[in-house]
Amino acid sequence: MGGDFAPAHEVRGAAAALAEAAGRFRVILVGQEDRIRAELATLAGEGETVDSDNLSVVHAPDVITMEDGPTAALKTKKQSSLSVGLELHKTGTGQAFVSAGNTGAVLSASTLMLGRVQGVGRPTIGALIPTARRPSLLVDAGANVDCKPRHLFEFGAMGSIFMSSIAGVAEPKIGLLNVGEEESKGNEVALETYRLFKESRLAFVGNVEGRDVLKGDVNVIVCDGFVGNILLKFGESIPAFFKSRFTDFSAKSLKNKFVALVARNGLRGVLRELDYQEHGGVPLLGVNGVTIIGHGRSTAKAVKNMIFRAEEMVRHDVNGQIRKTLGNPHA
Amino acid sequence: MGGDFAPAHEVRGAAAALAEAAGRFRVILVGQEDRIRAELATLAGEGETVDSDNLSVVHAPDVITMEDGPTAALKTKKQSSLSVGLELHKTGTGQAFVSAGNTGAVLSASTLMLGRVQGVGRPTIGALIPTARRPSLLVDAGANVDCKPRHLFEFGAMGSIFMSSIAGVAEPKIGLLNVGEEESKGNEVALETYRLFKESRLAFVGNVEGRDVLKGDVNVIVCDGFVGNILLKFGESIPAFFKSRFTDFSAKSLKNKFVALVARNGLRGVLRELDYQEHGGVPLLGVNGVTIIGHGRSTAKAVKNMIFRAEEMVRHDVNGQIRKTLGNPHA
Repeated sequence: MGGDFAPAHEVRGAAAALAEAAGRFRVILVGQEDRIRAELATLAGEGETVDSDNLSVVHAPDVITMEDGPTAALKTKKQSSLSVGLELHKTGTGQAFVSAGNTGAVLSASTLMLGRVQGVGRPTIGALIPTARRPSLLVDAGANVDCKPRHLFEFGAMGSIFMSSIAGVAEPKIGLLNVGEEESKGNEVALETYRLFKESRLAFVGNVEGRDVLKGDVNVIVCDGFVGNILLKFGESIPAFFKSRFTDFSAKSLKNKFVALVARNGLRGVLRELDYQEHGGVPLLGVNGVTIIGHGRSTAKAVKNMIFRAEEMVRHDVNGQIRKTLGNPHA
Repeated sequence: MGGDFAPAHEVRGAAAALAEAAGRFRVILVGQEDRIRAELATLAGEGETVDSDNLSVVHAPDVITMEDGPTAALKTKKQSSLSVGLELHKTGTGQAFVSAGNTGAVLSASTLMLGRVQGVGRPTIGALIPTARRPSLLVDAGANVDCKPRHLFEFGAMGSIFMSSIAGVAEPKIGLLNVGEEESKGNEVALETYRLFKESRLAFVGNVEGRDVLKGDVNVIVCDGFVGNILLKFGESIPAFFKSRFTDFSAKSLKNKFVALVARNGLRGVLRELDYQEHGGVPLLGVNGVTIIGHGRSTAKAVKNMIFRAEEMVRHDVNGQIRKTLGNPHA
C-alpha cells in the first residue's frame, strides 16, 4: 500500500505475473481489502483475466507513507501492509515479500522481522545500473552509510551471488570503488577491504574508479551506502541537466533549435536507461527471507518483474548460497 | 616540466599571460633550460612577441613524471622544476607557483615546503564543476581521502573564500554533500560536520544530495576527497558513455544514424563542459603560499589562466582571509 500508485500498479502487476506464471506460484495481495477488491473489479471490467485461483487478499488497514520515518512508522502502524505481509512471510504462509513502499521502512522491517542470514553483519540493497555493456550491480545503494571493511566484503560476496544466480552472469567480477587502481590507493576502509577481498576466494579484480562505473567491465561494484547513494542520485540527475543545457543551446539560433529537437528525441531513449530505478526491484540481500524492494513509482510491469525476481530468489536459494559463502569463517 | 606537454604549453601560456599582463607581473620559467630556451626560440620564430623583460628562466634538470609516486619523487628528484620552483616561492623570489605536473607531488611538496595557514589542518584542492547555473566548487576533489568533521568544515570555509574572492560570487552558499536533506541524515562524519557548519557564521544552507550537484543552487559543495574523486571521475566518464550509447543507437536504422549524427554535433558543446578539468587550474587552498594546480594535459590557454588565477590569489590575499576565518578558534 505504500507505493506511489498503490494499490493500482500492485494489483495489475500481480495479475500480469499470474497470467504469465500459469499456476507456477500464488500471490497474496496484502493491504486495504476494499481498495484492492475495487481494483480487481476494474481490471475484470476491462476484460482482463485474473487468475483468482492463485490470488488471495489479506486485509491490512494501515498505510506507511513515503514521508514516514521508518522506525516510528513500524511502531505506530502495526497493521500496515508491510508488517502484515512480512509476518505472512516469516510464518511461512508466503515464501517471499515484494514492495514498492518506503524503502527505509521495508529495509528496517525486513531486517527486524526476518533476521539476518548466518554470517551476514549488514543486509544490503544493490542497484542495477546501465553500463556500456550489461548492467552492473552497485552495492550498497544507500542502506548502510557507515561501513566497516567486513561489511563491504559481505556486499561484494552477496552481490556476486545475486548476479550469478539471478542476473545470469557467469562468474561475476567484483570491483572495489576507489580513488585509484593501485592496491595502495584509498581511504583506510578501502585499503582494508581490498585486503579482505584479495585473501578471499571471490572473483575480485581490484579497484575500480569513478570513471569505470559506466564501462561495465566489472559486474559488481562495491562501495558503502554513503558513496552509493550520492553516485546513484547524481546519475539520476544527468537527464535533467542535459535537458537544461539543451534549452540554453536551442535558444541561441534556429539551426540550434532544430538540432536540439532532433537530438532530444534521439537522446530520450539513451537517457531513460540512466534512470536505474525503472529496471524493477532489487532484493534486500542478507535477510533471512526474500524481500524485493521496488521504486515508489513502479509501474505494473515493474511490479510484475519484482514478483518474478522474488520467485527466482527462492528457486535459486540465494540465501543458502550466501550462508555457504559467508557463514563459514574461513571463506 | 611534469605536464603532458611540457615545456611547450607552459612556455606558450607564460608568453600569452605576459602579453596580456602588460608588465603587471613577471614570470620565472623553471625547468630544463635548454628545452625552455628552444621553445622560446620557436615561439619567436613564429613571430610571437615575448616580453623578455619580464621573463626569466631558472634551470632545474630533474623531471617528476605522472607515474612517479609523490613522496618518493620528492626525495630522489631534488632538482625537479617542482622543488626548485617551490623553493623560489618559499624564499620570496616568487609570490606564487603554478604547475600542470603530477598533482599528488605538487600537493605534497607544497604542503611540506610552504607549510599550512594558521588554523588549517588539511590543505585541500577543489574542482570547479559545470551546473545548470554558474560553476560550483566541489571541495575536496581528491586530496584528502580520510577526513574528520573539522577538515570538512575547513574545506567549506576555504572554498567559500575562494568563490567570493576569485570566482566573483557574492556571499557563496555552502552545502554539505549527503544522502538526504534532513539534518538527521548521513554517516557519522556528515552528522558532526553538519553541526559544525550550523554553529558557525558561514553561509551554510544544509545538506545537498547527489541529484543537487549539477543544479548549481549552492556555490560550494563539501565532501571528503574519497567521494569527491569518485564523483568527479564518474562525471568525466559520461561523455564517453553517451558516445558508446549513440553508436549502438545509430546502428539500428538509417533514420537513427541521421538523428545520431545531428545529435552528436549538438551534444558536443554540451558534453565538453562536463570535462571540468578544461576550466584551468585550481588553487591548493590552505598552504602558506599560492600554488595553482592544473590538469596534466593543460593547454597553453589553461596555463595562461592559471597564471592569472595565481595573481588574483595574491592580490586578494586569500590566505589572509583564510587565516582570519579559521585561525580564530571561535570562528
